[in-house]
Amino acid sequence: MASVCRIAVSGAAGQISYSLLFRIAAGEMLGSQQPIILSLLEIPQAMQALEGVAMELQDGAFPLLQSIELESDAKRAFRDVNSVLLVGAQPRGAGMERRDLLAANARIFVEQGRALNEHAAEDVRVLVVGNPANTNAMITQRCAPRLSPRNFSAMMRLDHNRATAQLAAKAGVGVSAVDGVVIWGNHSTTQYPDLHHATVDGHPALERVDSAWYHEQFIPAVQHRGAAVIEARGSSSAASAANAALQHMRTWMLGTAPEQWTSMAVVSDGAYDIEPGLVYSVPVHCTDGDWQLVDGLVCNDFSR
Amino acid sequence: MASVCRIAVSGAAGQISYSLLFRIAAGEMLGSQQPIILSLLEIPQAMQALEGVAMELQDGAFPLLQSIELESDAKRAFRDVNSVLLVGAQPRGAGMERRDLLAANARIFVEQGRALNEHAAEDVRVLVVGNPANTNAMITQRCAPRLSPRNFSAMMRLDHNRATAQLAAKAGVGVSAVDGVVIWGNHSTTQYPDLHHATVDGHPALERVDSAWYHEQFIPAVQHRGAAVIEARGSSSAASAANAALQHMRTWMLGTAPEQWTSMAVVSDGAYDIEPGLVYSVPVHCTDGDWQLVDGLVCNDFSR
Repeated sequence: MASVCRIAVSGAAGQISYSLLFRIAAGEMLGSQQPIILSLLEIPQAMQALEGVAMELQDGAFPLLQSIELESDAKRAFRDVNSVLLVGAQPRGAGMERRDLLAANARIFVEQGRALNEHAAEDVRVLVVGNPANTNAMITQRCAPRLSPRNFSAMMRLDHNRATAQLAAKAGVGVSAVDGVVIWGNHSTTQYPDLHHATVDGHPALERVDSAWYHEQFIPAVQHRGAAVIEARGSSSAASAANAALQHMRTWMLGTAPEQWTSMAVVSDGAYDIEPGLVYSVPVHCTDGDWQLVDGLVCNDFSR
Repeated sequence: MASVCRIAVSGAAGQISYSLLFRIAAGEMLGSQQPIILSLLEIPQAMQALEGVAMELQDGAFPLLQSIELESDAKRAFRDVNSVLLVGAQPRGAGMERRDLLAANARIFVEQGRALNEHAAEDVRVLVVGNPANTNAMITQRCAPRLSPRNFSAMMRLDHNRATAQLAAKAGVGVSAVDGVVIWGNHSTTQYPDLHHATVDGHPALERVDSAWYHEQFIPAVQHRGAAVIEARGSSSAASAANAALQHMRTWMLGTAPEQWTSMAVVSDGAYDIEPGLVYSVPVHCTDGDWQLVDGLVCNDFSR
């Protein structure tokens, strides 16, 4: 049996975490042989609700879950952690300007980055889910110079899954028949879901769907999917975001299928003319806990 | 690849289902090779929220999930279904008497039992989660005389898991070291969590924990765990209930481990002096979609 993996989750009493923690405990993130310890971080006001979540995790009787620790201090929560999912973030309140939101989150992620820098295991892998995820990930990474910048990422898998599912539905195939979708950019409405390299049943996707659909329907549908879910469900995507977070970490640690890639926002080294240091979504292969940029994709004028 | 399994879930836009559906879609209930169709049933007022849940399921890009059907009519939702999880029930409203609650649920489960009788596949397995689960299951079963009474059950797995976890915590071991817990009776505070046959690391559990703890702390803690979770979390158990439902169906279809049992409420044939026809929790072995009563357990005077 593998040695235990310490997994920290912030915003652990929130809705996304509620859809995430039980699946992690069941072994869906790191596999059915990997014992885990959950270190759950929340703000002081949410600690009682977090106790309730911990009771329910205990009531899951999960064989892999060795223990659960509840913390309101990032320095304690991140001690020796191997895997970190930063789900919590300051949501936009009524009347809050975008700059206020960015500032409030900057405070949170500076503190968490410093705590990781001081206390996390050297091999720690960090996924930022809380929005604005790319900016929050960049702040976290820059506050943790002891750790490899390659070990910080922001979640684009939800967008990647949405794009894959939309293409599959349009083409009338199962999602397994779709491959090679790329999300470039940020987890925001400025992202670019790119089908120029995608295939359906091994054939170019853009020969299967028409160009007007791609430009006028697919791209805005993927960009604005979050708002559409809120409108229908009455609350924001939680279970699909949790599912994407789980898949992001699972793919990172256990690998992509041969010849396949996924989309992850990682620290740019300047490839594809992306500004170095930005946390930006690109296509990556993953093997054994490491990612490699898929390079050499030709981007046409539209994509640029 | 196995032929597709049609799975119906009622109360599909509710909190328990929100913790359940994504795990079913990921293959956690029936395994990673079993393609599925989800048939989701809700009351008319919840159909828009259900659309949102379906969007998020699509956004999961689950390879096993062939399609999602949304229905507000049980007859349509249960057409040719192989697996049914009756999660939805009328909750107790302010000022509602217990008999009003029972009557409201009787109406729902009579209708659903009749719909199953007319439209479900002959091999359908039915799990009732919505409370009062045992009564609701009995009503459903009695309204579906075409189907084998053995194919109806009510969920006791949450209680079984809670008892297992409480014993493991007291004994200072992982849950895998605990075996042989039995929950007798109903999913209510009248249930009897029985440790007389339980073991910890292969040794009798009641030699490991003292009798006062068993009688004065363990039994009431398991019986009243639901209320304790509500008090801490501010809302009722959803993710742990969903987890138990998933495990109940998985164990039923894929089997218990050799020499192990679980607790399921099934239609009594009179064994253990339980009134025939009641849906009552007993220890069962499961193999290939069938359950067998664990018989011959000696029940002492206290247990009776």
